[in-house]
Amino acid sequence: MTLIQEKVDQAKSLLKELGIDCWITFARESELNGDPTLELISGMSVTWHSAFIVTAAGESVAIVGRYDQAGVEDIGAYDEVISYDEGMKSLLQERLKRIDPESIAINYSRDSEISDGLTYGMFLTLQEWLTEIGMARRLVSAEPIISALRQRKTAAEIEALRHAISHTEVIFEKLTRFIRPGVSECAIADFMQDEAKQAGLELAWEPATCPEVFAGPDTAEAHYNPTHRVVMPGHLVTVDFGIRYEGYCSDMQRTFYVLRPGEHVPPDAVQRGFYAIIESIELSRQALKPCVLGYEVDAVARNHLKNNGYPGFPHALGHQVGRFVHDGTAILGPTWEKYAHKPFHPIEPGMVFTLEPRVRIPEHGLVTIEEIVLVHEKGARFLTNPQKTLIEIEPY
Amino acid sequence: MTLIQEKVDQAKSLLKELGIDCWITFARESELNGDPTLELISGMSVTWHSAFIVTAAGESVAIVGRYDQAGVEDIGAYDEVISYDEGMKSLLQERLKRIDPESIAINYSRDSEISDGLTYGMFLTLQEWLTEIGMARRLVSAEPIISALRQRKTAAEIEALRHAISHTEVIFEKLTRFIRPGVSECAIADFMQDEAKQAGLELAWEPATCPEVFAGPDTAEAHYNPTHRVVMPGHLVTVDFGIRYEGYCSDMQRTFYVLRPGEHVPPDAVQRGFYAIIESIELSRQALKPCVLGYEVDAVARNHLKNNGYPGFPHALGHQVGRFVHDGTAILGPTWEKYAHKPFHPIEPGMVFTLEPRVRIPEHGLVTIEEIVLVHEKGARFLTNPQKTLIEIEPY
Repeated sequence: MTLIQEKVDQAKSLLKELGIDCWITFARESELNGDPTLELISGMSVTWHSAFIVTAAGESVAIVGRYDQAGVEDIGAYDEVISYDEGMKSLLQERLKRIDPESIAINYSRDSEISDGLTYGMFLTLQEWLTEIGMARRLVSAEPIISALRQRKTAAEIEALRHAISHTEVIFEKLTRFIRPGVSECAIADFMQDEAKQAGLELAWEPATCPEVFAGPDTAEAHYNPTHRVVMPGHLVTVDFGIRYEGYCSDMQRTFYVLRPGEHVPPDAVQRGFYAIIESIELSRQALKPCVLGYEVDAVARNHLKNNGYPGFPHALGHQVGRFVHDGTAILGPTWEKYAHKPFHPIEPGMVFTLEPRVRIPEHGLVTIEEIVLVHEKGARFLTNPQKTLIEIEPY
Repeated sequence: MTLIQEKVDQAKSLLKELGIDCWITFARESELNGDPTLELISGMSVTWHSAFIVTAAGESVAIVGRYDQAGVEDIGAYDEVISYDEGMKSLLQERLKRIDPESIAINYSRDSEISDGLTYGMFLTLQEWLTEIGMARRLVSAEPIISALRQRKTAAEIEALRHAISHTEVIFEKLTRFIRPGVSECAIADFMQDEAKQAGLELAWEPATCPEVFAGPDTAEAHYNPTHRVVMPGHLVTVDFGIRYEGYCSDMQRTFYVLRPGEHVPPDAVQRGFYAIIESIELSRQALKPCVLGYEVDAVARNHLKNNGYPGFPHALGHQVGRFVHDGTAILGPTWEKYAHKPFHPIEPGMVFTLEPRVRIPEHGLVTIEEIVLVHEKGARFLTNPQKTLIEIEPY
């Protein structure tokens, strides 16, 4: 059974569990305006208006343009693949009249971008077609379906994530021998991308910022391209990098310290910051278990840093990883406007989260470590081999 | 001036021309749910709720999450880049109150997928924020802005397209010496992808179907992966391939005929089909000029084939190319439901179209050629070197 067949099957039982009769993923020209759910339930792009229909009764039907029919049949996840040349409106209307669902879930959500793949223009089209058959009032958000599909990782998904992580760790290990004073952020990025390429591995996100590299105290911080800034003695160097393996993404950060001539251990301020980060990761991992809420876990790490005299970090403690680097709906984050309801979702077994607090050490740079943990029935365990000590780089 | 600066400038004058006061591209996690317009006016992805605002008065302002600020400033196309940590609602509301536009264009369209990047969830958020400041009724579709931005190609864009086409032609030229009986569709696809890779070129669309290769009479037709089917004497072989150069895509098809032992010219049926295609391309190119409508041009090719005893092809005669293989809103296509209003848009100078009619020759396969033409003030000229004769492959 392929990952996609597994997910379409999972969707059928989820619909039953959630009491939703029918779920429609409605897309067109998906290479341009890709509903992120397509990657999960189709794995191929579609050109014309296309509907992927799953029902609580256990049916799966696709209606697609003629040239996509053979490709969708090959997926092997749809009992029926119907194709057309001129238009699909009547095909979809007839099929829905036959199913006569009380609720029809569609892919939109204010809070969850992974569940918000339906465009507004496509919504208007669907609404008109459903109005014509008296079903427009049956529309509901598919967010609970899509979130659960992504969040409840199957054994095969965890396995792919483990591979992605282990490849990432090998490249970080090699990086330890590459970083030295005089090497630029760009050179570090090139080194890692070359290593990935030679190993035949894909990057987890866009090459411009995979990896992100920050050397020293004068950096722009996260989500910014590596620069020609050069690693110097006394610098903290942090690297954020990920690999995509069979469609599943790692996302990890490691922190290095470059000793100054004559220095045998990092300065106190650096050490203190490092251990505050390590502890905040461990404490939040211990707090992470089914049924707690994301913001409660975020608060554990954030408060630990505050209690040690550091300001809070300007982002969430952790996000889910999966087919995308920012996957799932629930996050471990503070209750800020931009996170909407995401920090209020109860944690479930099968979720995979990053833990990535950060502090800034004046005159040295950032300390930021990002580990990956899997939630199980009783708690959470590391999928990464967690960084335990500051990686020291010799000054020469 | 970069292509993106050029496009943001073009947008300012378009707003004035179209009588629209303000245009907002509103996006989040754009690597997942990418509004295709972002590639045109930003060139980088954004993580948090972000607004790219252009006004008819000539302002350009971006409101983005803190970590995207430096990247957006580097684009050099926005007079002001405002950033935030917790939420952007009040920043956007204040800015809109200051601009006080009578009309606010947003990226949705039932007909034009390139203009339909706003998701339904994001629409609901924006609608709520605008309702709070009494501006929700000012929303209009940005389709005329986005279509014109994509359709009116600048000199730099045409230049990039020319490069993409010329690289594609070089690879097709090499392919002529590679195709022979016994070679599979997959081997042909691998050969072309290797050639692109060795030349350091990106493919124009997803690798699974770039190129498409169809050998002989028993093929699935367009939009289907190459198979292990093998080229045989008597086969027509068609290949659909494109290269992306500096973000701009070619899309071309060529037709080959494999002679049978003792055969010195292709059979009559094949020759007749080939010339019917060549003529229908030339006749439709002559019909293509500013102010005619897309369906009129489609009809010229379609009717020529029908008059020669062939059935019509089950797709449009041509689409625009640009940053995507299917670019722009106007198409040269029949008035079918799935094409909505696209065939009714008047042709404008600066549009770049494919012309790609096809016929099926029983027992031999497909004849399908795809050329690219640029519309100018008085007509349309080829950007490709058009295929004039059937490319003959020796049987041994």
